[in-house]
Amino acid sequence: MRLALLEAQQAYDNGEIPVGAVMVCNNKIIAKAHNQTQMLADPTAHAEMICITAACGHLGAKYLTDCTLYITLEPCMMCAGAIKWAQIPTIVYGASDKKGGFKSQILNNFYHSNIQIIDGILQEECAKMMKDFFKKKR
Amino acid sequence: MRLALLEAQQAYDNGEIPVGAVMVCNNKIIAKAHNQTQMLADPTAHAEMICITAACGHLGAKYLTDCTLYITLEPCMMCAGAIKWAQIPTIVYGASDKKGGFKSQILNNFYHSNIQIIDGILQEECAKMMKDFFKKKR
Repeated sequence: MRLALLEAQQAYDNGEIPVGAVMVCNNKIIAKAHNQTQMLADPTAHAEMICITAACGHLGAKYLTDCTLYITLEPCMMCAGAIKWAQIPTIVYGASDKKGGFKSQILNNFYHSNIQIIDGILQEECAKMMKDFFKKKR
Repeated sequence: MRLALLEAQQAYDNGEIPVGAVMVCNNKIIAKAHNQTQMLADPTAHAEMICITAACGHLGAKYLTDCTLYITLEPCMMCAGAIKWAQIPTIVYGASDKKGGFKSQILNNFYHSNIQIIDGILQEECAKMMKDFFKKKR
């Protein structure tokens, strides 16, 4: 999660909403990414999406069944869908996203799939980065 | 939708689940795409995702507020999320997807956003292509 925060810091420095993601496969980091929606002018370029595509590229496989995805923020509906398609068994995230996070938008059957969800890791630091970003913007 | 079906046919011919998408902006086609998850070994490479990214690339903008997205199949949760992020005001699709479609997975607040959803266009042809594909596979 420390590395995911460093990725988020890069997004922050680029004026992007500061979200970072790190993919770990069998105790090895295989992909890191941060939000690039502004820079790429692409609303799908969330940290998780880039990280999943990069991890699949690294492994040459479209399923990430031996991976854990670390994210500084609760994933949105789009990213939660991508996590499901990629068959990532475990996700770990820091700050909750009450408004845009998947928990407020997706029916419970998402949880009933076999995805293990661990939240609240380095929560305060992850949440602080988001708060600082929007404070600076507004 | 005829053009989206032609895109789906390309996916079919490549051994991909046959889904096609076309983005129309002010009565002009600005992007076309078909599912490429197998070819790219990327579970995020759905027709809609590629089409959204291509359309944003074409316009140099991350919002597609003057666009309509035509898709042969009801979008999944991931693609529905991307459609929301891209602020596409109208989506039109052919066949329903009772199992993997967003309607079965997302809470009603998706509808309460301002997205107009038109379904059932060329439904039989769109559904037939999916059925034929899976019949051949199994």
